[in-house]
Amino acid sequence: MCQGPSVASFISHVTVDCADAYSLAQWWKPVLGYEDVPDDPNLPGHDECMIVDPAGKGVTVLFIEVPEGKSVKNRLHLDLRPRADLRDTEIERLIAHGATVVGDHRGQYGPGTGWVTLADPEGNEFCVLRSEAEVAELPAPPVAPDA
Amino acid sequence: MCQGPSVASFISHVTVDCADAYSLAQWWKPVLGYEDVPDDPNLPGHDECMIVDPAGKGVTVLFIEVPEGKSVKNRLHLDLRPRADLRDTEIERLIAHGATVVGDHRGQYGPGTGWVTLADPEGNEFCVLRSEAEVAELPAPPVAPDA
Repeated sequence: MCQGPSVASFISHVTVDCADAYSLAQWWKPVLGYEDVPDDPNLPGHDECMIVDPAGKGVTVLFIEVPEGKSVKNRLHLDLRPRADLRDTEIERLIAHGATVVGDHRGQYGPGTGWVTLADPEGNEFCVLRSEAEVAELPAPPVAPDA
Repeated sequence: MCQGPSVASFISHVTVDCADAYSLAQWWKPVLGYEDVPDDPNLPGHDECMIVDPAGKGVTVLFIEVPEGKSVKNRLHLDLRPRADLRDTEIERLIAHGATVVGDHRGQYGPGTGWVTLADPEGNEFCVLRSEAEVAELPAPPVAPDA
């Protein structure tokens, strides 16, 4: 059992339970630069809405309506990196798009480091990290496990 | 704001809150065919353990220890497809590896369709879908939104 990748599974998609699948999928599409599945467009009222990376690189996301509401901090969350903009520019853009700030951890590992935790319109937490260019410019210092 | 993919973010990784990051990362590595980050191996006691797809295709997963325990069904979960084996073979292999069955939805959309919801050793739900070969052989019938 589980002796190597030849018998393993791959992650087909990440599923997000929600109250309004269509609205939440619409909100996330520009955030990730994703689109509807070709030939299977999401429509208002659909209780399952899938969005995909048109470049075929990013993991597919499926929004699916469930009867129960969100009650606690999500145990799984997405961590995002800005494709082009700087972290702080992207965060301002996301707030203007409707995200709310859950926690600001900028500078947690020294000046110029860190991230911000935001929430989507249904309260699902996600983090915005520094862009790859920013990380290359100023790597976070090593931190001892007990620091 | 959010005018197109050029200003969007990409998903850097999926983070999983947990009680024991090292043990859970070790458990998931063979499930996904993932490995430690080259030059940054996970070790017992590390409170953050990242695993990556050596083929560079699958989304990276980060296990991070948090003080609170799991209390409700996760609002986000991973959906897996067997790389080579059939769905039912993979599910048996996962149960032997330590997964527990949360819900058996095989046949939900007719004979030969459906999935099984399993949980990892910390109770995080994930689904095992049919392999791509199985889907190609017998697509699920269309289901009306109110079915």
